[in-house]
Amino acid sequence: MPGTTGALLEVSGGITAVKGVRAAGVACGIKAGRLDLALIVSDRPAPVAGVFTRNRVRAAPVLLCQKLLAGRRLTAIVANSGNANACTGRPGLADAELVGKWTAEALRRPAREVFVCSTGVIGQRLPLEKIRRGVRQAALSLSAEGGRNAALAIMTTDRRPKERAVAFTVDGLRATVGGIAKGAGMICPDMATTLCFLATDATVEAPHLQRALREAVDRSFNRISVDGDTSTNDTVLCFATGRAGAPRLTPRSAGWERFREALTRVACDLAHLVVRDGEGATKFVEVRVKGARTPADAQAAARAIANSLLVKTTLYGQDCNWGRVFAAAGRSGAQVASDRLALSVCGVPVAKGGLGLGPLAEQQANERLREADVTLDLDLGLGRAEAVMWTSDLTEEYVKENAAYRS
Amino acid sequence: MPGTTGALLEVSGGITAVKGVRAAGVACGIKAGRLDLALIVSDRPAPVAGVFTRNRVRAAPVLLCQKLLAGRRLTAIVANSGNANACTGRPGLADAELVGKWTAEALRRPAREVFVCSTGVIGQRLPLEKIRRGVRQAALSLSAEGGRNAALAIMTTDRRPKERAVAFTVDGLRATVGGIAKGAGMICPDMATTLCFLATDATVEAPHLQRALREAVDRSFNRISVDGDTSTNDTVLCFATGRAGAPRLTPRSAGWERFREALTRVACDLAHLVVRDGEGATKFVEVRVKGARTPADAQAAARAIANSLLVKTTLYGQDCNWGRVFAAAGRSGAQVASDRLALSVCGVPVAKGGLGLGPLAEQQANERLREADVTLDLDLGLGRAEAVMWTSDLTEEYVKENAAYRS
Repeated sequence: MPGTTGALLEVSGGITAVKGVRAAGVACGIKAGRLDLALIVSDRPAPVAGVFTRNRVRAAPVLLCQKLLAGRRLTAIVANSGNANACTGRPGLADAELVGKWTAEALRRPAREVFVCSTGVIGQRLPLEKIRRGVRQAALSLSAEGGRNAALAIMTTDRRPKERAVAFTVDGLRATVGGIAKGAGMICPDMATTLCFLATDATVEAPHLQRALREAVDRSFNRISVDGDTSTNDTVLCFATGRAGAPRLTPRSAGWERFREALTRVACDLAHLVVRDGEGATKFVEVRVKGARTPADAQAAARAIANSLLVKTTLYGQDCNWGRVFAAAGRSGAQVASDRLALSVCGVPVAKGGLGLGPLAEQQANERLREADVTLDLDLGLGRAEAVMWTSDLTEEYVKENAAYRS
Repeated sequence: MPGTTGALLEVSGGITAVKGVRAAGVACGIKAGRLDLALIVSDRPAPVAGVFTRNRVRAAPVLLCQKLLAGRRLTAIVANSGNANACTGRPGLADAELVGKWTAEALRRPAREVFVCSTGVIGQRLPLEKIRRGVRQAALSLSAEGGRNAALAIMTTDRRPKERAVAFTVDGLRATVGGIAKGAGMICPDMATTLCFLATDATVEAPHLQRALREAVDRSFNRISVDGDTSTNDTVLCFATGRAGAPRLTPRSAGWERFREALTRVACDLAHLVVRDGEGATKFVEVRVKGARTPADAQAAARAIANSLLVKTTLYGQDCNWGRVFAAAGRSGAQVASDRLALSVCGVPVAKGGLGLGPLAEQQANERLREADVTLDLDLGLGRAEAVMWTSDLTEEYVKENAAYRS
């Protein structure tokens, strides 16, 4: 959807649309014949923010990134796909540190500024020699057009690379937020989900950047669900090169809202791309809940619906089985009164006052369910709180991919 | 598994193995050409206990049963399949009351002793005339051998009927616990899941029966999961005919433990049958968690593993992807230390101290995963609490069945 939203202008280039950012994606041999190592570099050490998985089983690179974040400065992100370096213990942590050290050497910068990420199979040691060679090659391949290759190199079961950038204006100067992400499986809300790397050439100090990133993630990656499983490796990093030349932004600046909007927009677009590319998905589903007594109730109901296998299979079957939506809301923990519930499917009212509106309404809704983008609007009829979640349908293909993932 | 467990003797006959119980299953026309209406009758009004869904969207028959339970006496259970009478509002409740009234008239007993249950599609009114005729026919068909037909008549997507009975001794007299259940989809733990009807010819007053039933359900139906979705109709009823002639049992009686054991055994066997017959399931999976800091932690970890789509698909793929088990435990909310985790798959250790034990171990485990009954033994290594859950694998067939359920 190129174009403007308010004062945001969508631009091409992904993360390398941001001034001061170069990137590369190379094939180092972890995944035969495919790009599998991404390198993203800031021309100057940049303030950095990060949000990580809340899974208590955290991969080695997550532990390393969390430690590095205390230094608040980033020169590079090096990320491999095909191997998650998760459940690999102390040796795995040492491996991640080595990858960071080699990258730092290739870039002639301190290792404390190099963030290391991994995604792929759990429980296997990294193929270090391959990565060592890959890092050297990637450092030589860095370019201001390399965002696309970096996006390709972090893919696992993704079918398409995910990148997005928007430009906005701060004090008359053009600034940019760009990013790449990967997704496909182990996607669950309430977490910083998947790998997502964001950059901006606005000037923002690390604590403000952290706050803006947390908010953007809460409105994007924490609102999506593919399968309810939360990865051990989920990482979102954001750094600010300051190369747009605009004055420093703080929450008190006039331009702060515009920056937040741009960051949230890029994060949301990337999160939606993750859902659209969910394993086996044929549909992009927006679940909107309103009329909840509290925001927590709205969120709980939306999440339960987005995670319900029965809702997700009925959408795949293009059948507006609204009872399954009511049942999911009913077990969500949210305050629910059966006789207040109303549901519209793709804008067609199918149930009201807890009761179905008949076969004609259902038939109309089922026709709309043939489309790839569908909506569920549930009104709990009890209050004013609202929430939204984005999810995919559940198909045989998801089962097939995940039954055969390692074979 | 016929035979004895301790002093319990497995016997045939299902719920009609219990003295004083007659049953019937008839085809009243809700599901073309299949049994769809079950009637279970106690020769005398019997003390009754019940456990119901915690879903806040409760079907009309659940609301009716909860009301009737206050009267503590049961003469009959009438249950139809093919239509859940859920999300049908006040008219649906009136329908359920009518079904109870007609059944009471056919049996010449008060309507307050007739419990009404439904299972099937949500959101459609009951076909009352068909049920009226079916109730009359069922009342004429009642027999002490009718348990099997009743079990057949409550099936929805179940492939097999589910019945079980065990005999035990109270003060030298033989007593029996028998029951039937249905399952297949919308099966989720932490609830009184599915329809399950239990009877005993032991003499037990309603409050003690309620306590024993709650415990039995907590150890059986609340420990199973097929798809994480909780039905609007889940109901477990248990009544005590007293026809064994044994003295009244209370928690202080010598025979109480034996009775509890028998009730729990029948409930567990039926719950396992529900899992074995889970929609599309090819495997019966026992998830055992030990070494947890608290029982709640053990339960949370076991539940997260049993509900994880990634664990369930990897088991279907016969691949011991142990990292997915660790990841599920890690996101469960339980206290977990990555480097303490150990996992055995079908008795084969595959990971210890948070690390994989190598390809040879995995290969051995994968060979064992070809069997239909598999076990996951996770040791959190932090304490002494344990928990167990039973679940199935997730297959393309589950998706197919649920995408096409109403068509």
